[in-house]
Amino acid sequence: MIHQTAIISSKAKIGRNVTIEPYCIIHDNVEIGDNCFIGSFSEIGLPTPLAQTNKLVIGGNSTIRSHSVLYIGSMIGECFSTGHYASVRENSEIGKNVQLGSRSDIQGDCSIGDYTKMHADVHIGKYSKIGSYVWLFPEVLLTNDPTPPSENLQGVTIEDFAVLAAKVLVLPGVTIYKDAVIAASSVVKSDVPEGKMFSGNPGKVVCNANILRCADNPKIKAYPWRSRFHRGYNEEDVQQWLNNIK
Amino acid sequence: MIHQTAIISSKAKIGRNVTIEPYCIIHDNVEIGDNCFIGSFSEIGLPTPLAQTNKLVIGGNSTIRSHSVLYIGSMIGECFSTGHYASVRENSEIGKNVQLGSRSDIQGDCSIGDYTKMHADVHIGKYSKIGSYVWLFPEVLLTNDPTPPSENLQGVTIEDFAVLAAKVLVLPGVTIYKDAVIAASSVVKSDVPEGKMFSGNPGKVVCNANILRCADNPKIKAYPWRSRFHRGYNEEDVQQWLNNIK
Amino acid sequence: MIHQTAIISSKAKIGRNVTIEPYCIIHDNVEIGDNCFIGSFSEIGLPTPLAQTNKLVIGGNSTIRSHSVLYIGSMIGECFSTGHYASVRENSEIGKNVQLGSRSDIQGDCSIGDYTKMHADVHIGKYSKIGSYVWLFPEVLLTNDPTPPSENLQGVTIEDFAVLAAKVLVLPGVTIYKDAVIAASSVVKSDVPEGKMFSGNPGKVVCNANILRCADNPKIKAYPWRSRFHRGYNEEDVQQWLNNIK
Repeated sequence: MIHQTAIISSKAKIGRNVTIEPYCIIHDNVEIGDNCFIGSFSEIGLPTPLAQTNKLVIGGNSTIRSHSVLYIGSMIGECFSTGHYASVRENSEIGKNVQLGSRSDIQGDCSIGDYTKMHADVHIGKYSKIGSYVWLFPEVLLTNDPTPPSENLQGVTIEDFAVLAAKVLVLPGVTIYKDAVIAASSVVKSDVPEGKMFSGNPGKVVCNANILRCADNPKIKAYPWRSRFHRGYNEEDVQQWLNNIK
Repeated sequence: MIHQTAIISSKAKIGRNVTIEPYCIIHDNVEIGDNCFIGSFSEIGLPTPLAQTNKLVIGGNSTIRSHSVLYIGSMIGECFSTGHYASVRENSEIGKNVQLGSRSDIQGDCSIGDYTKMHADVHIGKYSKIGSYVWLFPEVLLTNDPTPPSENLQGVTIEDFAVLAAKVLVLPGVTIYKDAVIAASSVVKSDVPEGKMFSGNPGKVVCNANILRCADNPKIKAYPWRSRFHRGYNEEDVQQWLNNIK
Repeated sequence: MIHQTAIISSKAKIGRNVTIEPYCIIHDNVEIGDNCFIGSFSEIGLPTPLAQTNKLVIGGNSTIRSHSVLYIGSMIGECFSTGHYASVRENSEIGKNVQLGSRSDIQGDCSIGDYTKMHADVHIGKYSKIGSYVWLFPEVLLTNDPTPPSENLQGVTIEDFAVLAAKVLVLPGVTIYKDAVIAASSVVKSDVPEGKMFSGNPGKVVCNANILRCADNPKIKAYPWRSRFHRGYNEEDVQQWLNNIK
């Protein structure tokens, strides 16, 4: 159902069974897949001269919550979900089943894999490269300018399955490798190797993440988290994870 | 006055002398008390399957500023006030005279007492329990997942009269007891006893809060703050505070 | 072009060639200069009893992006630019060519010089005084209450050309002098002298900023940045900078 107050360009392609809430604005060259929900007061497909393609694709079964702003020029996979006041700028490639929390911000020219989940107030600087199955908790910030201000921007790289806890700051050009775990409020100034736990400001690698135990059951290894946490993933992925860990 | 562009469900109950600004959306089963103000572009009573009651009550004399989002399923006392872009999710109980700053976020299943005041960008994780007369300054974050990601969420508890200064991060399951004071930018990993001052990352209790003096007058004890700061409280409360402190 | 859904007071003065996007609200006594753009869902000129003048002036050639909120009572120079969800409260004086990022917040009674640039999520407490050509990177927070809560607010002062990197917190009453550079995530509790580099929490002056080199070319001094970064400034300023540095 498309609310009568929504303002929709005749050059937008809207799939079947799409809900568009009151007071939305959908610009030219936006393609919204089947079964999507676009929350009230959202503006989708803002034009910008920085966009490399004159198109915004939002995959089917996506939910954009109210007051969100998505620019033209990005490709977003199916089952995308945002909280309220989320913003996504141009030239980003976002996989399937990605979640952004409220007030999260993808600043453009980023790539994000599949099933990566960001909580509220996560801010992803330009040129960040984020893998699949990554978790970014509230107020994580990925930066990109090593000598601010400059035009030499260096994005952050985060590999699959990494976890960044609340208020983590990652400095420009840093790589956080697969399965790494970054403790809350850490400042990450250099690369974090695969499977390591990093903590502090100034921070450092403190241990292998796989020696950590669950807070509610010390018999269960907390990391890699995919050995124990499966909600929201598909069964085949989970089976493969379990086979590979053993 | 209800603006003609506001979209109001016939199943909402709107009190007397309520102002609803342009382009607001009021959903089913919302009850708004007398003399309330609902700012423009706000959406009140969003449905969610997570709500335990199909109702949102906003007490009389409340002010919801523009671009705010309140879900169905919470009970909010009188004289509630929010800044702009504030969001409150389901299943929360909020007392009277509570203030939220702009971009503040109550993530659901929380309880908040009376006269608790949050500045801008305060983010309250699910399952937090906050007492009365608490102060939360800008960018305070209360978390809830000790081994992220997990389903074992443990809310933070903050007792009456506690003060959390700017950018404080509180880790899951921590209790901050009555009259405690947490210095700006601290990371709180374990409980803070009553009346103590806590500071740092990694932080620790540094002294009794009641040895601190006001910045502008070293003759006046800064804490417990209720001995010296009374703006916005009712006279009976203040009188009781002063009697109990002596 | 003014969209037909925009609600514009007959007491507002709108310059020539102004674009006002859908669902904007422009209140009484707002003056918008020529060639401005006001993004959708913005509310401009909110009344407040705290305003010392009953007027809001926005200089010509300004761009206010969507979902922004500007109160009555401030003077804003030409070529002002905001991201989305920006908010500016009353009694502020903002020079020309100032940029605010998305979700940035000027809390009122502030002064900001010319060409000062703030990235996303910068929050400027009441009574801050910020010079010209200052850079504030994401999630910088300027506070104002030395013994919270109190009524003894002391704003932060930041002089010309200073750089505050991401997530910096500045405590009340601190002055950051000309050309100082504050490293990411630092907490600044005392004044930072001219041209110094400050880092850490608890932080300290670590060196003269002018010994730092550019990340991409160690032959180039990184600071003062005006010796090497000139994008977006006018030629006369740049020439004067270069003459004065030598």
